Amino acid sequence: MEVISKQLSVSSEIKVVALAGGVGGAKLAHGLAQLLPPERLTIIVNTGDDFEHLGLTICPDVDTVLYNLAEVNNPAFGWGRADETFHVLEETKRLGHDAWFMLGDKDIALHLLRRQMLDAGMTLTGVTLELARRLGVTHPVLPMSDQPVRTMILTPEGELPFQEYFVHRRTEPAMLGMRLAGLEEARASDAALAALDEADAVVFCPSNPFVSIGPILALPGVRERIAQTPTLAVSPIIGGRALKGPAAKMMAEQGLEVSAAGVARHYACLVDGFVLDEADAGLADAVRALGLTPFVTDSVMRDKAGRRRLAEKVLAFALSLREERGGE
Amino acid sequence: MEVISKQLSVSSEIKVVALAGGVGGAKLAHGLAQLLPPERLTIIVNTGDDFEHLGLTICPDVDTVLYNLAEVNNPAFGWGRADETFHVLEETKRLGHDAWFMLGDKDIALHLLRRQMLDAGMTLTGVTLELARRLGVTHPVLPMSDQPVRTMILTPEGELPFQEYFVHRRTEPAMLGMRLAGLEEARASDAALAALDEADAVVFCPSNPFVSIGPILALPGVRERIAQTPTLAVSPIIGGRALKGPAAKMMAEQGLEVSAAGVARHYACLVDGFVLDEADAGLADAVRALGLTPFVTDSVMRDKAGRRRLAEKVLAFALSLREERGGE
Repeated sequence: MEVISKQLSVSSEIKVVALAGGVGGAKLAHGLAQLLPPERLTIIVNTGDDFEHLGLTICPDVDTVLYNLAEVNNPAFGWGRADETFHVLEETKRLGHDAWFMLGDKDIALHLLRRQMLDAGMTLTGVTLELARRLGVTHPVLPMSDQPVRTMILTPEGELPFQEYFVHRRTEPAMLGMRLAGLEEARASDAALAALDEADAVVFCPSNPFVSIGPILALPGVRERIAQTPTLAVSPIIGGRALKGPAAKMMAEQGLEVSAAGVARHYACLVDGFVLDEADAGLADAVRALGLTPFVTDSVMRDKAGRRRLAEKVLAFALSLREERGGE
Repeated sequence: MEVISKQLSVSSEIKVVALAGGVGGAKLAHGLAQLLPPERLTIIVNTGDDFEHLGLTICPDVDTVLYNLAEVNNPAFGWGRADETFHVLEETKRLGHDAWFMLGDKDIALHLLRRQMLDAGMTLTGVTLELARRLGVTHPVLPMSDQPVRTMILTPEGELPFQEYFVHRRTEPAMLGMRLAGLEEARASDAALAALDEADAVVFCPSNPFVSIGPILALPGVRERIAQTPTLAVSPIIGGRALKGPAAKMMAEQGLEVSAAGVARHYACLVDGFVLDEADAGLADAVRALGLTPFVTDSVMRDKAGRRRLAEKVLAFALSLREERGGE
């Protein structure tokens, strides 16, 4: 991780919590981690996509964040490890397994260690922090909860577990709604709530508002803490499209306006500021009309430097929002 | 699998149960499987060596038998798969795992399927039969029990789980004794007992008498059934040495005579016949003095044909023992 730039000496003094899902969230988290030291940045990650498969507990968003922060992610896929082989999965296929979920050999290594630690009674938070340590990740990466919350997608064919809908069915069925199975029994982890208590600013990364950020917000205590903190969201929709994943399709199927403004409306009661891509500069007024402060910048993170550049803008924006709210 | 040889039309009409541990047991089981159709051969395999590792349930003897019968075993190692890679294990090492137990990528594929099936509530017997089916193995390979029985080795440093003693410590500590943890709660599987009930002959494969055959014999109901059936053992000790594994060392440490005759004495109350290698022809009288019928042959199985050759001898010997006992 690079040294913190001097221009950001001010923002480096604030404590930031980033809420993240998979690819887009992992990219901005990586940008923020290039700027802020571990004691000033906590990343709370969605676990609604998690599932049990091949006897393993698979945490797609947590792992995407870990792999990106460790800089061992596969940039071509957006999931999994770079320089990966698939020998185990190929053999499971020969043994009759319907291998619809791609797990590479290095990825499986991490999953076996997770399985072993979970079986030994560690919490998912403890396991994730230990895996982060072993990957050389120094920033706290926290699963949103230690209890299983599983996103179920309501479709015309009935309810589908998220990965079944997302990977196996390639988001083909229409999404009529969603349900978070296990939510009644779940609570945000103590570490996640403590990080929110201490945060000077909260950043919603450019992740899917429904299935990535939504489950984190649904946990008791999270919304209340966010309401007390300067908060901004980065739009995952640019030019009416999602860079990755089914966010745009989901918005259309739920009758929402498929645009950055539609996302801003979805977050209107929760955030103070909203980051729009330059392609959506024309929506700034619509965002302002919702009572949110708009901020327009190039929000496409093409490489490591691009992640850092967006993170710098986001931190500067967070500081200005904080001043607007009277420097709480 | 080859067609059953005509010379063995008689022995092919008897039902045989083979008790097996790892390498030596798997070799003779493979020889028998070349001669007998699935409905006339059942292999009951030791599970005392099983352990939980990396979140997986590892059944070394069961898998060695399965891989040998499927002819996908690694002939160089005596364990694991041929044409194997170790990408997962190498990554677990990089992630700080003390990878003292070798698991190749193809081997891990099988273990993930086992984990998944066990998690789904299947018995170890059901899982093993399903894995056998997927590997193309048609003979019933039965773990001795569906309850965990774990061989603990008593050493001067205290008690060690078997794989810890055998693989991690390379059988270095002296074996003062052994204990089968979980035996009180365990019973032989219904399928294993039924096979013994129907058996016309029982064969103790050339496996370790203490840690391979011993645990199977310790299960309630097994010895009684064996006592009612013509039974023979093939010596795992040839010329005072074990071809593989710690049997000779264990015998010495327990003050037993390290020879085929020492093994025969250990089995004296259980078996009717005892197969000695030609190198031990001079021990035939000692075997006879124990009240057992000796049978001398070349018992080293150097290749697939050698396995079959020994199996032919063993079946012919079993038939003659059956006639001696009055053709029960």
